[in-house]
Amino acid sequence: MSQSLEQLETPALLLDEAQMDRNIARMREQVRRLGVSFRPHVKTHKCIEVARRMMETPEGPITVSTLKEAEYFAQQGVKDILYAVCISPNKLDHVAALQDRGVRMQIILDSVEAARFVAEHASRTDRHFDVLIEVDSDGHRSGVAPDSPDLIAIAQALQRAGLPVRGVMTHAGSSYECRSPEEIRAMAEQERAAIVQAAERIRAAGMACPVVSLGSTPTALFASHLEGVTELRAGVFVFFDLFMAGLGVCRIDEIALSVLATVIGHQKDKGWTILDAGWMAMSRDRGTARQPVDQGYGVVCDLGGTPLQDFILVDANQEHGVMARRPGAAGEPLHLPVGTQVRILPNHACSTAAQYGHYDVTGPGHEVKDRWQRVSGW
Amino acid sequence: MSQSLEQLETPALLLDEAQMDRNIARMREQVRRLGVSFRPHVKTHKCIEVARRMMETPEGPITVSTLKEAEYFAQQGVKDILYAVCISPNKLDHVAALQDRGVRMQIILDSVEAARFVAEHASRTDRHFDVLIEVDSDGHRSGVAPDSPDLIAIAQALQRAGLPVRGVMTHAGSSYECRSPEEIRAMAEQERAAIVQAAERIRAAGMACPVVSLGSTPTALFASHLEGVTELRAGVFVFFDLFMAGLGVCRIDEIALSVLATVIGHQKDKGWTILDAGWMAMSRDRGTARQPVDQGYGVVCDLGGTPLQDFILVDANQEHGVMARRPGAAGEPLHLPVGTQVRILPNHACSTAAQYGHYDVTGPGHEVKDRWQRVSGW
Repeated sequence: MSQSLEQLETPALLLDEAQMDRNIARMREQVRRLGVSFRPHVKTHKCIEVARRMMETPEGPITVSTLKEAEYFAQQGVKDILYAVCISPNKLDHVAALQDRGVRMQIILDSVEAARFVAEHASRTDRHFDVLIEVDSDGHRSGVAPDSPDLIAIAQALQRAGLPVRGVMTHAGSSYECRSPEEIRAMAEQERAAIVQAAERIRAAGMACPVVSLGSTPTALFASHLEGVTELRAGVFVFFDLFMAGLGVCRIDEIALSVLATVIGHQKDKGWTILDAGWMAMSRDRGTARQPVDQGYGVVCDLGGTPLQDFILVDANQEHGVMARRPGAAGEPLHLPVGTQVRILPNHACSTAAQYGHYDVTGPGHEVKDRWQRVSGW
Repeated sequence: MSQSLEQLETPALLLDEAQMDRNIARMREQVRRLGVSFRPHVKTHKCIEVARRMMETPEGPITVSTLKEAEYFAQQGVKDILYAVCISPNKLDHVAALQDRGVRMQIILDSVEAARFVAEHASRTDRHFDVLIEVDSDGHRSGVAPDSPDLIAIAQALQRAGLPVRGVMTHAGSSYECRSPEEIRAMAEQERAAIVQAAERIRAAGMACPVVSLGSTPTALFASHLEGVTELRAGVFVFFDLFMAGLGVCRIDEIALSVLATVIGHQKDKGWTILDAGWMAMSRDRGTARQPVDQGYGVVCDLGGTPLQDFILVDANQEHGVMARRPGAAGEPLHLPVGTQVRILPNHACSTAAQYGHYDVTGPGHEVKDRWQRVSGW
């Protein structure tokens, strides 16, 4: 198939294949330099065609955020999957079913309470689980502190149950709040130091800790070294987005994902151009609202992907986007006739992509060369 | 099928069937009292089982926000569909394809520019389009002002092209910003007066205007009369949500939609309970942030649907929700063991439901009695 953008009904989710490949190449080079293995997070794209370009082998490894992703990628031949959200009792049967289909599943937990129900399930069903302990390197959300007595208590509880801990993992989500490259570099070192400390404490307590895993796109790209770490995880780098650009992790012209939209009307008195891409097409993500430059619901570009100077989606309803100059910006009115197509760069690739069932993959002349399906839900 | 909530993997989208039926009955009673016909908006639920309970006949009429919805409901036998987003040239072939399958499609527009391309397409393909003119009753987004010369110019352009205008429609989206029942009542009258004025101006210019359509859930429920109006539209009332409760349009215990989630960990120092429902499960919608009571990413309830006093999702990552007391609230710590299930009421039913492929429909004992599929995307 090959279609022009003009032939697409809008809104549509465009994926610039060459830019995505450059983003992946950049991360691969960084992984090579850091000397660790790479377990890409697939939660941003949830698409096997994208995953195949990121993975070290067709069988993985990968990181997933839901068991639905694990199911889908397992069906596509992936055999080494880390489910990177603390496990709950009502998901263990599903993990077991994936194991029975030949998938090496790793699960995570951060409490003695969870270690006990995992051990109980393993014992009751005569089965093994590969368990990592989640470590909190930055106060962001889940995980035990690297210096907490709980860390050793969890490892020992697993050990006693015949499920010796497979390793430790952390995600410095606070890197998204950094304000400069220096802060991101410092956060990368904080993430590394925390996970290495956790691994060393487990070893000092007489247990093995083969896996030492960390990562987020900002810390992965800014880490100077990863001594003591075995594995890096990152996901959003594959597409990048306005939030990552605002953080200084990528340039705006490195964003591989955009939403194709069409002008459906105007409110000339107000300087508004109404587009057929609202929050359903962009997602409700307003992540850049807390960055120095608020990009509204997205930056409006021409069909070649070049930003229309100072035009953003200033507001959005379910299927309507209000395109206007960003607050405070002055300039000549811009009249785009009804029917004109534009492209909109998203605040957050993960949330925008989740609004669609597929990607329209574009080639060097912005033609649509392929359609890649993706999964959603749980 | 009948399952207990405990048997569901989480997150899952629960729909309380009896509460939904009560919400529909309330709107039906209002429609009957107002003496208009009812064209429910299906954009909130996108599900034929829900639509069948709202529609006046199995063939409709309904209002849709995307042509994907039109396709889906047409496949399910609906034959009278208003696509309530201004039409663009790249969607007319799709509208025509729906007409060819026996669907009476109504499209809307708000400019002479659009009237011209619709007329051109009709003439080129020897086809008729039923066109309504969108009227701006509140400065909210699309539409021509009811007193604008453009209104008559559009109607005349359609008339000359052999596509006499079918009517006028408006949506007072600003009703979502009202602060009291009095303000909503005033907005309902503003919406009614504007659309009736537009219809009368078209008639005074010598043209017919059989359809006079308006609606939003708040104005529909608070309108005292709808003299001069032929048709009411509303959608979100079917489920309601925290935003509507904050507006005073429903009570919190009338919300029919909730997200079932499971405790996966704690950060006791911070008073955090970590749930497996993050923004992917709730959507990024933070609509209540601009209301007097900010409900975070949702109000946490027990399995019976009763709010756990003062506990909300104070923060959310993609698959992690942070449950804690709302800022400023004090009280005893609440320890919910890992594995405990809770239900979360959403800020916005339309955006939360869109994150799921189906509803788990619950009966009087909170058992899951059915699974209803829904559509997404474009």
